[in-house]
Amino acid sequence: MGTRVGIILLSGTLDKAMPAFMLGTTAAAMGMEVGIFFSFYGLTVIHKEKLKNLKVSPIGNPAMPMPVPVPQILTVMPGMMDFATNMMKKMMKQHKIPSIEELVQQAIDLDVKLYPCQTAMQLFGFKKEDLIEGVEEPVGAATFLNFVNKADKPIVLNF
Amino acid sequence: MGTRVGIILLSGTLDKAMPAFMLGTTAAAMGMEVGIFFSFYGLTVIHKEKLKNLKVSPIGNPAMPMPVPVPQILTVMPGMMDFATNMMKKMMKQHKIPSIEELVQQAIDLDVKLYPCQTAMQLFGFKKEDLIEGVEEPVGAATFLNFVNKADKPIVLNF
Amino acid sequence: MGTRVGIILLSGTLDKAMPAFMLGTTAAAMGMEVGIFFSFYGLTVIHKEKLKNLKVSPIGNPAMPMPVPVPQILTVMPGMMDFATNMMKKMMKQHKIPSIEELVQQAIDLDVKLYPCQTAMQLFGFKKEDLIEGVEEPVGAATFLNFVNKADKPIVLNF
Repeated sequence: MGTRVGIILLSGTLDKAMPAFMLGTTAAAMGMEVGIFFSFYGLTVIHKEKLKNLKVSPIGNPAMPMPVPVPQILTVMPGMMDFATNMMKKMMKQHKIPSIEELVQQAIDLDVKLYPCQTAMQLFGFKKEDLIEGVEEPVGAATFLNFVNKADKPIVLNF
Repeated sequence: MGTRVGIILLSGTLDKAMPAFMLGTTAAAMGMEVGIFFSFYGLTVIHKEKLKNLKVSPIGNPAMPMPVPVPQILTVMPGMMDFATNMMKKMMKQHKIPSIEELVQQAIDLDVKLYPCQTAMQLFGFKKEDLIEGVEEPVGAATFLNFVNKADKPIVLNF
Repeated sequence: MGTRVGIILLSGTLDKAMPAFMLGTTAAAMGMEVGIFFSFYGLTVIHKEKLKNLKVSPIGNPAMPMPVPVPQILTVMPGMMDFATNMMKKMMKQHKIPSIEELVQQAIDLDVKLYPCQTAMQLFGFKKEDLIEGVEEPVGAATFLNFVNKADKPIVLNF
């Protein structure tokens, strides 16, 4: 059963969710079977309300390009995270990179399986109806590992 | 030699160590051979004293659930990391998720191999007797890669 | 075609770039084919000027060894990131661990393929001549996934 790509998304920030979905949709478009397992904070990426408000974190990221050099002390100031998020979204729009909402929809259209982690659902008190349309039933880590392990060539990435 | 799961743990925070061990013990319980390579800050997770004091980092994590919304500036205030760590531990206990100490013991019981990185041991000045019982002798990255590469289907995760 | 190791580097900090290159050069020295895909902030690691100024981030990293315990609030103070970076570089030099510049050169000498991500190049406005000598032409994620997928045993790591 060829190559299967399993992606584990543990982070709820745009700077992790974007590359996870860009790699996932690319692999799916190349004909690989792809499944994404959303656990811990990653669950927010398939949460109806929270998906719209994902943010970039400028804190502790000295490599982040800023219009002017910003001392690290400023990166924790109120408003800085929104500023960095807006700047990043604007840069991505200018370069015609799809938004995270568009990437999630592309993934569903390409038949990428989106698996919510059962344990994390309980931990955060999320219900199935809190999640976006098109995701699978919540599963445990064993189901995800089994999905990946059925392939001749399993590739696993975690963000 | 079927599937082997190799996990590289480079982080010393609870929010990385927990999923690493949850996935590792799940894979081992499914019958896969599992080895974890502890390098850089990850080494603290198998350090006798430090294992008891692993913390969650609330900084730069806008997706972290908090009882009330917390401006990023507050996440660096003294006491905030302990607060977040205690809240997370309480949530996990309520949902009967094992503690990190229990997960490490489960891993050893399931014959998961715990490999301390030789270079990181030297870098941090740790001795073998500083580490918990049940870990392997310190090895280099080549030994770990060799462990993984002996499988027909190697799966590698890094945290 | 044996084992191929694909490394995705999305971070521009020393604490991610160092282990990525240490694992990459080790795998190459063991005879595996290795390719590194530099996307998002990871692109700074093969940028001529920026490579010289990579930093360690002490923020939100309670596991980082410090000469004296440092409250998290201090980790965002001006100068703290430089202090942590210098301390780490000194520790590595003492233990004869190669610098990141040396590791990048070793990788090139061992025929590790360094793939700049085309989309990230556009996003950050980098040109091919801004990058160090010895890197491949910028490619998309599909080319990288294809490189990895050609192996019998693909191993993918992301930092």
